[in-house]
Amino acid sequence: MKKYTQIYNIIRDMILSGELLPGEKIPSVRKAAANYSVSLTTVQSAYFELCADGYIIAQSKSGYFVSGNVHSHPDEEQADVQSNAIYDLSGGLADEESFDFSLWQKYIKSALRQSERLLSYSQPKGEYDLRCAISQYIKEKRNVIAPPDRIIIGAGILPLLHILCSLLDKKLCVSFPDKSFVLGMSVFADYGFDVHIRDKDADVIYVSPSHMTRWGDVMPIKRRLELVDYSRKHNSLVIEDDYENEFLYNVKPTPSLYALGKDNIIYMSSFSAMLLPGIRVSFMVLTKELTEKYNQNAFRYAQTAGKTEQIALCSYIRDGRIKSQIRKIRRIYSAKTKKLAGILKELLPEAKIEIGENTLQIILVAKWNKSPEEFEKAGIRVFIEKYENNRITLVLSPSGIPMAELEKAARLLADVLLCK
Amino acid sequence: MKKYTQIYNIIRDMILSGELLPGEKIPSVRKAAANYSVSLTTVQSAYFELCADGYIIAQSKSGYFVSGNVHSHPDEEQADVQSNAIYDLSGGLADEESFDFSLWQKYIKSALRQSERLLSYSQPKGEYDLRCAISQYIKEKRNVIAPPDRIIIGAGILPLLHILCSLLDKKLCVSFPDKSFVLGMSVFADYGFDVHIRDKDADVIYVSPSHMTRWGDVMPIKRRLELVDYSRKHNSLVIEDDYENEFLYNVKPTPSLYALGKDNIIYMSSFSAMLLPGIRVSFMVLTKELTEKYNQNAFRYAQTAGKTEQIALCSYIRDGRIKSQIRKIRRIYSAKTKKLAGILKELLPEAKIEIGENTLQIILVAKWNKSPEEFEKAGIRVFIEKYENNRITLVLSPSGIPMAELEKAARLLADVLLCK
Repeated sequence: MKKYTQIYNIIRDMILSGELLPGEKIPSVRKAAANYSVSLTTVQSAYFELCADGYIIAQSKSGYFVSGNVHSHPDEEQADVQSNAIYDLSGGLADEESFDFSLWQKYIKSALRQSERLLSYSQPKGEYDLRCAISQYIKEKRNVIAPPDRIIIGAGILPLLHILCSLLDKKLCVSFPDKSFVLGMSVFADYGFDVHIRDKDADVIYVSPSHMTRWGDVMPIKRRLELVDYSRKHNSLVIEDDYENEFLYNVKPTPSLYALGKDNIIYMSSFSAMLLPGIRVSFMVLTKELTEKYNQNAFRYAQTAGKTEQIALCSYIRDGRIKSQIRKIRRIYSAKTKKLAGILKELLPEAKIEIGENTLQIILVAKWNKSPEEFEKAGIRVFIEKYENNRITLVLSPSGIPMAELEKAARLLADVLLCK
Repeated sequence: MKKYTQIYNIIRDMILSGELLPGEKIPSVRKAAANYSVSLTTVQSAYFELCADGYIIAQSKSGYFVSGNVHSHPDEEQADVQSNAIYDLSGGLADEESFDFSLWQKYIKSALRQSERLLSYSQPKGEYDLRCAISQYIKEKRNVIAPPDRIIIGAGILPLLHILCSLLDKKLCVSFPDKSFVLGMSVFADYGFDVHIRDKDADVIYVSPSHMTRWGDVMPIKRRLELVDYSRKHNSLVIEDDYENEFLYNVKPTPSLYALGKDNIIYMSSFSAMLLPGIRVSFMVLTKELTEKYNQNAFRYAQTAGKTEQIALCSYIRDGRIKSQIRKIRRIYSAKTKKLAGILKELLPEAKIEIGENTLQIILVAKWNKSPEEFEKAGIRVFIEKYENNRITLVLSPSGIPMAELEKAARLLADVLLCK
């Protein structure tokens, strides 16, 4: 083996084993030459080849660094790397127009000034004043009447489901409306629950009435009443995930199951979609019975949501900011959906294009078969609902794309679908 | 047998048999009196003796709990009952001197300016650059060598344990060093694991080598090596919770189990205790095998820690702020402990007063029996480790009390212990 290949292998192995970490500086040429008793040229050659193969990066005047992309498991890295797509229509994004950052900054700053409060751990259920504000807010907005004591805050829906599962009898059977909420289904399965799809006789029934399908169908009042009635008769517990209720725009407001039901409904909602995806504050309203069980076991739980954001959010809600924020994004998102649907209808006259009930998503059915890679390559990320009978069904969420760039995104999408 | 002795025996047997678990609330005096058809005074006498014998602990306003292990993991300390105490020596608190709020505010402000990053959800494992920074940090500090890919961020130790449990085979047996970490034990029990105490042949062994007891004993190197060796031979998984390692001051630095061990160690740590209890950012380093399993199932997980705090913390670590912060609190906390111990020794010459190995806690053994209520009434909150032979053992953590007020707190405490 040539000497420079030996040096190459030594450094490469140190990188692959994790001994040298991404971003870390590797020994200088001079130092390595001394370490391994070889010439400067030998090290230089090895380093050039390591650069060429992407293991290290040369930075002028500062030396060589382990490249950020090198990992012992190259496949896993893909999940870590941000998409190359310029336009992401697959959902879960906000855009800069839709959130007043400087306003939120003011609330965070003011929360950080409450240094004394930040010196202790949050109560397991979450900050008391935020739970009071939420109690008031859901009463006004969704007719969900619950004292702060029954409200549990958490850093997202998942930590709340963990708490809920720990309160329920294991070996129960839980039903989900379809297979799309993988995260939630996994939590229940991990706890030993039997997970069924659309089983109205399950002990626990998980529903998101404001977002029944990926394109935001809303559960009609008649079915809500049936569900509430049936679950009460069968003594089953209903988990009402009020996901995306805030965005309902075109349809008539529908009452929450919680307001329709009795003591067997757990109400859940999140602030992430209304504010920013990175803000992790969700909450659930437990039944009286489960609240008692929680209280007896409170020593087992710890709050997951950050205290600063809890304090900030409390004032934000109390000042009525959340209501104006919701009005704002509802207006913006709905305008975007309509605009994108309009452009796509012109560009793709043969495709079937519909706006989902909650006006956040567009369903597009086209007769061409295209792979996800073909969209990505064109700079577009989409959610592919299904391939069927040589037709492709896409669900498009334009919320994360600036209004001014919708036309460009639509054109890129149309180009993929139209080219052969 | 006297009636109150009968009640005493009934409750004691329920505790010893495991029918009542550590931390569990026992029936109220009123309820027990009704249940066993005896007078309130009889129950009260029995409960008082159970307290004196260390079986149960009274908590003001919430009733009686099975003792020894009523406390939760100190990292996840919860202020369940709002304390009226002016001075809280029970732990889990920081004080204003120990954290530079205006500096942290700058990092948060700068994170909030990165609006584009805040518009999307965090990667399930957490922000990539924070994981890089952590990877570098734990390598330098604890010789824990792990690429960012194997690091999972979460909003506290609990969400991380949930992920870990979901990756492990259920029906395994897990061992904890004692019954004190109720939160962690509950998570494993909920997932169907068999939870044992001090079982070296368990499949999963949970240890916090830098905080083995409530007063911060440190696992000696010899035992570390034995544990690493034994676990490797027996093919068991070790969870190393590096809790309070940052505070070790008097003792020699001890290597992490992770650095001593091979591929069977999971390393966990949290930033809450170093920064502010309200900042919820913890992390774990998975083994290669479990990382692969995680990656295959990444769609099942969502990040719980807030994005703003993750971005801020990343720059905070990169700028070397975390190191100076640790030096600072180590200095402050250790000075406080020494000062409080000195004052108490003068005030209570007959008590046995020792500083714990990690200099964060003081162990005080006094010959007087006092109830938690008596301390609370005097404006002091303490952690009562046990009642034994007419002696009370307190664990005192002065970290949350300003230096200038330690003397006053000590006097209040001494007054309770000295008065009859």
